[in-house]
Amino acid sequence: MLSKDKEYKNLLKYFYIVIPAGGMGTRLWPLSRANMPKFLHDLTGSGNSLLKETYYRLKPVTNNDILLIIGHAHKNAVCSQLPDIKTENLILENEPKDSGAAIGLASALFYKRNPKIIMGSFAADHVISSNILFRKSIKEALLTASKGYIVTIGIKPTHPSTEFGHIRIGQSLKIQGAKNAKSVIQFIEKPSKYFAKKYYQSGNFHWNAGMFIAPVEIILKHLQHNQPNLYFGLKEIANSWHLPQKYKIFSKIWKNLPKIAIDYAVIEPAAKAGDVAMIPGEFKWDDVGDFSAIGRLHSSNKKIENKKLTIMRGKKTRILSENKSKKIIISNTERLIVLIGINNAVIVDTPDVLLVTNLSDANKVKQTVNKLKLNGDIDVL
Amino acid sequence: MLSKDKEYKNLLKYFYIVIPAGGMGTRLWPLSRANMPKFLHDLTGSGNSLLKETYYRLKPVTNNDILLIIGHAHKNAVCSQLPDIKTENLILENEPKDSGAAIGLASALFYKRNPKIIMGSFAADHVISSNILFRKSIKEALLTASKGYIVTIGIKPTHPSTEFGHIRIGQSLKIQGAKNAKSVIQFIEKPSKYFAKKYYQSGNFHWNAGMFIAPVEIILKHLQHNQPNLYFGLKEIANSWHLPQKYKIFSKIWKNLPKIAIDYAVIEPAAKAGDVAMIPGEFKWDDVGDFSAIGRLHSSNKKIENKKLTIMRGKKTRILSENKSKKIIISNTERLIVLIGINNAVIVDTPDVLLVTNLSDANKVKQTVNKLKLNGDIDVL
Repeated sequence: MLSKDKEYKNLLKYFYIVIPAGGMGTRLWPLSRANMPKFLHDLTGSGNSLLKETYYRLKPVTNNDILLIIGHAHKNAVCSQLPDIKTENLILENEPKDSGAAIGLASALFYKRNPKIIMGSFAADHVISSNILFRKSIKEALLTASKGYIVTIGIKPTHPSTEFGHIRIGQSLKIQGAKNAKSVIQFIEKPSKYFAKKYYQSGNFHWNAGMFIAPVEIILKHLQHNQPNLYFGLKEIANSWHLPQKYKIFSKIWKNLPKIAIDYAVIEPAAKAGDVAMIPGEFKWDDVGDFSAIGRLHSSNKKIENKKLTIMRGKKTRILSENKSKKIIISNTERLIVLIGINNAVIVDTPDVLLVTNLSDANKVKQTVNKLKLNGDIDVL
Repeated sequence: MLSKDKEYKNLLKYFYIVIPAGGMGTRLWPLSRANMPKFLHDLTGSGNSLLKETYYRLKPVTNNDILLIIGHAHKNAVCSQLPDIKTENLILENEPKDSGAAIGLASALFYKRNPKIIMGSFAADHVISSNILFRKSIKEALLTASKGYIVTIGIKPTHPSTEFGHIRIGQSLKIQGAKNAKSVIQFIEKPSKYFAKKYYQSGNFHWNAGMFIAPVEIILKHLQHNQPNLYFGLKEIANSWHLPQKYKIFSKIWKNLPKIAIDYAVIEPAAKAGDVAMIPGEFKWDDVGDFSAIGRLHSSNKKIENKKLTIMRGKKTRILSENKSKKIIISNTERLIVLIGINNAVIVDTPDVLLVTNLSDANKVKQTVNKLKLNGDIDVL
């Protein structure tokens, strides 16, 4: 074991982290907006935004700097939430390009620094507990990655879910210090109800939480093979990153890069090639996918006669609700909100948009946002 | 018949109207507020407020001025809605004193002008159609009142209602020119469901719409008998009404007058004494009692695949509703309102208060307002 710890300590020198935070969090609109996306909000009542929680969860697992890929528009908000972040560790997109470009660029930049770097990539807007269990998984993942794997951290299903992509796992990889490491046979898109139930019952599937740890060399190898245009564009950006005009070059190349998720550009083809492993995450995980997730997670859950009323409110919001059924009220206005006899409601009250829906329809918010986009109602996005 | 018309024309000389408009319209809160009560709103989409509709419905039925009793705070709004009203026809309450004091004062003022005056009293916030049928009832009521009756105009029930007081009618009074005039046996408070059904089936009951026409002499006789303190206070105000300091005297006396509805102070005791008659109103009538009434009455009713969506909106309100069930949205803000999968909802969106309820609970708004009063939340009333 001692030699394993020594190996791990040595690996830590090469372990770098990226947090891609380019998403808009459409499913939590109108709370989450283009200029104030999900990751900048405190959605759990912890007092910290999801980004801040993520950043300070990851700080202790690496000795090196953490890279953030964010939109230009969010720079000030991010810097004020993370006062110790250095500007050199912020990559500012002038337009979102999906995770393929973002994570690919981080890989290329790290590779240029040192080809031996192992990179961890973690979403900015997930909720995880406990940090101890999380770090345990990271340790196993890092040891597994060092054997040449792209290591995804899978979440053990707690129920049949049609909301998450699934990972079909194979045999144990028998890696020293990473006894839970398994080979990954296949990634599967969000399944139907029927298959979600089958997968859950079989025990051979984990949820794909989009977290992975991998040698940048392996990531880039697969990227070059599957998306050569993307690969060479990102290489060019990385090669000019030391120049004063780096952002000029970045913008010019970035705008022509293909939009593709890292899953399609790297992870899934790598799985087919036998290059992907999985460590099961034993921590609690939630991607705060819609308003009912806030209902589950927010600390202000008030139990009123065994029914739940979740309230996330502005400093001066007043609420009057006589009813005893479950409901979620989210407000960042100073208005008085009065509910009479409404069950399972979700109410999101913002200065310029009011959303009224119910728990079972909360997952349709994304479609609504798409409709608004098509209507040209960009002022409310 | 010619002589009847002559009698009617002669009666018209003595026919004066009062519109008591002191109510707050609590059941339509937060649309209706203390500073902008129900009667000042256009709740039907006619382009006019309920008060304006009422005033110009009544103008053609009298040759004399119409008296309005309103709160001090509403003077400017009323004058701007009714540009032809003379200040001398406005009585400005500095505190609401219920209909006993308001209608009693109008009676006392008219009596001082001419003891032979017959007064009609009509709520400011009811919806009536058609005006032709309305005028027909007024004519019969006036002819009946001239025989020494307090004549209420009853509404023929269209369904069993627990929302309205009922009038139990007796025999025909056989008054020339008022063939529908009936004696009134009893006034009955809002009945239970059981009795509402019984009353409806019997055919001997009409709804009490609070409209009546009566010689002021008869009103004052009953007021003096039942509420001598109120009667003498009102007499004193009326006797000083020609003085420059009339409002000083008015305020001083007014604040000590008992709060009582005209129904208890005059009409019900008069019915027991056999002094009350009823003319059935054949017009359509609605007291716009709650938000579901706006759903019924508002001209903006949009039929979406046979379901109704009633929208009363500000000039810049935007609404996105994908659902096909009945709902009522009332907004005087510029916000975008998005509804996803909410059925039978009532949403009232104002700058400082949001109300979310449903059609079956809309009648509980009044209780909520009372709760807010008790809580001391007077800024939102």
